[in-house]
Amino acid sequence: MAGDILESEIHQQPEVLKNFLKGESDHVAHVANETRGSFDYVIIAARGTSDNAARYAQYLLGAHNQIPVALATPSLFTLYRKPPLMKSAMVMGISQSGQSPDIVSVVEEGKRQGQPTIAITNDPQSPLGSVADHVIQLHTGRERSVAATKTYTTSLCALALLSAHLNTDDEALTQLNDLPGRMSEVIEETSVHLPRVERYRFIEHLSVIGRGFNYATAFEISLKITELTQIVAEPYSSADFLHGPIAMVTEGFPVIVIAPRGSVLEDMRSLVKRMDELNPELIMISDQPELLKRANLGFPLPSDLPEWLTPMISVVPGQLFSLALARDRGLDPDKPEGLTKVTETW
Amino acid sequence: MAGDILESEIHQQPEVLKNFLKGESDHVAHVANETRGSFDYVIIAARGTSDNAARYAQYLLGAHNQIPVALATPSLFTLYRKPPLMKSAMVMGISQSGQSPDIVSVVEEGKRQGQPTIAITNDPQSPLGSVADHVIQLHTGRERSVAATKTYTTSLCALALLSAHLNTDDEALTQLNDLPGRMSEVIEETSVHLPRVERYRFIEHLSVIGRGFNYATAFEISLKITELTQIVAEPYSSADFLHGPIAMVTEGFPVIVIAPRGSVLEDMRSLVKRMDELNPELIMISDQPELLKRANLGFPLPSDLPEWLTPMISVVPGQLFSLALARDRGLDPDKPEGLTKVTETW
Repeated sequence: MAGDILESEIHQQPEVLKNFLKGESDHVAHVANETRGSFDYVIIAARGTSDNAARYAQYLLGAHNQIPVALATPSLFTLYRKPPLMKSAMVMGISQSGQSPDIVSVVEEGKRQGQPTIAITNDPQSPLGSVADHVIQLHTGRERSVAATKTYTTSLCALALLSAHLNTDDEALTQLNDLPGRMSEVIEETSVHLPRVERYRFIEHLSVIGRGFNYATAFEISLKITELTQIVAEPYSSADFLHGPIAMVTEGFPVIVIAPRGSVLEDMRSLVKRMDELNPELIMISDQPELLKRANLGFPLPSDLPEWLTPMISVVPGQLFSLALARDRGLDPDKPEGLTKVTETW
Repeated sequence: MAGDILESEIHQQPEVLKNFLKGESDHVAHVANETRGSFDYVIIAARGTSDNAARYAQYLLGAHNQIPVALATPSLFTLYRKPPLMKSAMVMGISQSGQSPDIVSVVEEGKRQGQPTIAITNDPQSPLGSVADHVIQLHTGRERSVAATKTYTTSLCALALLSAHLNTDDEALTQLNDLPGRMSEVIEETSVHLPRVERYRFIEHLSVIGRGFNYATAFEISLKITELTQIVAEPYSSADFLHGPIAMVTEGFPVIVIAPRGSVLEDMRSLVKRMDELNPELIMISDQPELLKRANLGFPLPSDLPEWLTPMISVVPGQLFSLALARDRGLDPDKPEGLTKVTETW
């Protein structure tokens, strides 16, 4: 069937995460020991799906490690040829292939300036892997789909592992090891609801709203939908959404809301309440029964997961939603229009 | 007529910029002298339109002052209550009203941690103005429209002025003083083409593409369109666009491309070429005759403006496009659906 490769890669994720945690944990502990205390903030260079992983790092390193994270603007390093001075920074590049010249040039410049550097990549022999002081290898095996899934969740996991080791936080490490099992449950649970995705066969756009740790999830689900279904999907934080975009919500306007329990739940609840009178079409990814009940389509999450780990899990219904919707629209999820696996941007 | 207030505020911009430059230049020189060398990077907290000004700062301070800029994630300071340690950072808040509690809390925390702080606001007596070490006042007069226009271009101008003074760059200061006149020309030139905006009465979505200094412009034009017309508009850098979203471009898909001369022009040219076979509906904001000719609707820019100043000018056709399109759709641009002037987010 069209999309078999993508489907199989989505289903591989729990196994891939397990392998990653087993194979890379000691090395990441070593990287954490070598870099701890050597920087005041982190600059991350990434594009596409990897940039969404960088967004997770912004919240995770901020909330758990109290480290500010800046997302690099690669064109400053390539087009403008005037790289910022990165004193006090650790410079990190995230790229599945490790090939994108603009990402490599940011890490290269960090190294030239004498700052500590880390690469997160599937390929340690790639230009990105070769230039960085430390390489965290994703070990996902080859990703054949153009749309990234297992490399995304494993990149998040790599960041989570680094964060836990930087804090030498054993409780966090234990929670992390629980993740592959919970992901399997969500894949199974989500599958029950996929036949109803057909309802969205003819939508032309939708908004995806998340906040905090799951701001990254909103971006990643939007990107999967855009790549796979050719529907215009736009990510927002609930706070930014109220600063303007809520103006476009009219009756039946489709909105995906990511609302796991945790610090942002109240915020998502009041957004849903605020939208209620506008009568949007609500797709909910949540562990809260009352929110799921209120939605036109609800994807349940496990209710006992700590918030910082939910992004690895809450993206899964979005991946499967995008796959199902692409099939419903007669598109081949394994061959999205106009895309190639490695995109060389400068 | 509906939208008279917004229209008048768009047309006020050259005069407002002139007043700002006259009234605030000496004070900004003083702020630059007081803060120069006291930080390795800048953290900026902002929402909505002001966040787009922050995006301009990322490129401007990076390319001209070699200072890295991190966009703050306010929820780390409010919802997660675990503020990052901002050692080595200068902390800046941008807010027209100076009221948004989440923006104030970032600057407050910066001050508590002993870091230098700057507020850019219309109201020095606001909570944001009161907490910061230095206030750069916008002097725009009251902005009555919910959709921000003159406070956006003046915020960009404030950042440009600060950047020029930090570098004690007299040539840049001279170029900056030339800006109000050029903006008047663009307002006049754009008005000629506005009757043709009617063509877009029934579109449901569009993408807006810019890069480098004008990445901010893509975000701001998207936000104006979304707020005023209820059309789903999505901003992209040309590089990110190639990493996925180009998949949704089908025949007649509306795309606004911002392509002034400068470092990113070649990049925008090759994007347009790449999209050619997909036959999108092209709206072009550019000083390049061959790009304007190729577009379905072209808004000309002056050809002798240095690239770093183009964002203040290239956003103007987007403001006027949004206003005209809202009117064509029978909406009241002075009263966008579901929005208020001051949005209090946490």
